[in-house]
Amino acid sequence: MKKLFIIGTGPGDLQLLTPKAQQAISASTELVAYGLYLDLLGDICAAKNRHDLPLGEEINRARLALDLAAQGKETALISSGDIGIYAMATLVFELLDRQLQGLEQSPQWLEVDIQVIPGISAMQAGASAVGALLGHDFCTISLSDLLTPWETIKKRIECAAAGDFVVSFYNPVSKKRDWQLNSARDILLASRPANTPVLIGRQLTRPEQSINIIQLQDLDAKDVDMFTMVSVGNSESRHIVNGDKEWLYTPRGYSKKLA
Amino acid sequence: MKKLFIIGTGPGDLQLLTPKAQQAISASTELVAYGLYLDLLGDICAAKNRHDLPLGEEINRARLALDLAAQGKETALISSGDIGIYAMATLVFELLDRQLQGLEQSPQWLEVDIQVIPGISAMQAGASAVGALLGHDFCTISLSDLLTPWETIKKRIECAAAGDFVVSFYNPVSKKRDWQLNSARDILLASRPANTPVLIGRQLTRPEQSINIIQLQDLDAKDVDMFTMVSVGNSESRHIVNGDKEWLYTPRGYSKKLA
Repeated sequence: MKKLFIIGTGPGDLQLLTPKAQQAISASTELVAYGLYLDLLGDICAAKNRHDLPLGEEINRARLALDLAAQGKETALISSGDIGIYAMATLVFELLDRQLQGLEQSPQWLEVDIQVIPGISAMQAGASAVGALLGHDFCTISLSDLLTPWETIKKRIECAAAGDFVVSFYNPVSKKRDWQLNSARDILLASRPANTPVLIGRQLTRPEQSINIIQLQDLDAKDVDMFTMVSVGNSESRHIVNGDKEWLYTPRGYSKKLA
Repeated sequence: MKKLFIIGTGPGDLQLLTPKAQQAISASTELVAYGLYLDLLGDICAAKNRHDLPLGEEINRARLALDLAAQGKETALISSGDIGIYAMATLVFELLDRQLQGLEQSPQWLEVDIQVIPGISAMQAGASAVGALLGHDFCTISLSDLLTPWETIKKRIECAAAGDFVVSFYNPVSKKRDWQLNSARDILLASRPANTPVLIGRQLTRPEQSINIIQLQDLDAKDVDMFTMVSVGNSESRHIVNGDKEWLYTPRGYSKKLA
């Protein structure tokens, strides 16, 4: 059986790597990933063939993973976080779809048995680190306009604002993109209190983790980089302080029962 | 140190239980949960004191967990999925918040060190089982109007429709609620193609798992129960069939680069 594992390895802390993901990596000889993700896995990747294509080479990474698997090699395509959320999984299926439509010349891909293994995504690592920010309805929006027109992204931010969703921004900035996050902030500020709590979580669950809780009015792209998760509370999200501990949570409405 | 673990144990398959969650359960003597969630954990819960309050007793479950921890007992409050997503974590912080405001009479709660451990949520188990349905911007909406007014829920569905988000419905139906899901379907149908793919995933990752891929126009609450995840694709989500395998994915837009 030709097999391709598509694996999300969680935010970084190996204690959040699921046994299912770990076993799939163990069963593979070929690991295809952006190199940093493999570095985070440490010894688990020892004695494996690493195919660490750089950022920007996503399509070639997906092609390579399908090609290796189709050659009968035990192959794992790996992303940190959940590989099904803004990551490589969808690209593999997009290539398969193209092959099924006759737009690719790789019929061998269709013989590969695919298994997708989910992982803990950055929004979950962030929300749990500060309490329960995702406790009620939320959405995720990628601020990368490389593949999605800004008009579409802007419309989604406006809808997230109108619906009062907690919002997690993926790809908030990059080396070449710095204005989208501030634009998103301004759209949310039009309908959400200026003191709405915001989580700025950098390198979540990794040794260099830093977490800042700020107010929406103070959100600024200059304080955010590619390793940062930005999650904005809804109009009811609360920031509470208990001694030297502080928490963010979004209530589900139990207060009506508690009152 | 008085300690309370708040733990998400994933959808059911113990291979998706993180080592961090497993270790926290091992370190606890008191497990507070809806009984089914403890049953799913099997032997891990052996020789622990089970406090399995029934559905509807969420507030008492949160109070009990805080009380036990404040008494110095190693305590874990447990939900399946991600306990930070529509589950018990937020309720603990809501109680802490009330204590900080002087609305509760349990100052001992404030001495408890809290650690929240995220888990794989049902939407992730569902999306990965069928491919990559959460590959682009998505939202989650709970259809339970026990704590949230239907007008608020309806507004969120309308905004999710307007923003063309992939939508995962939590609490789609219950024994006493059966009309909200069909109403949500009709709202989405007003702006999304009738053949938009929908995942109906029941008892995901558990031995009795069943998965159906249907079209939005055929979504009906009578086919859904409390153990079911319903995720609706956006206008670009694709249903592809390769022999006896079928997949759902939501493209990120690489097709522009691939064309």
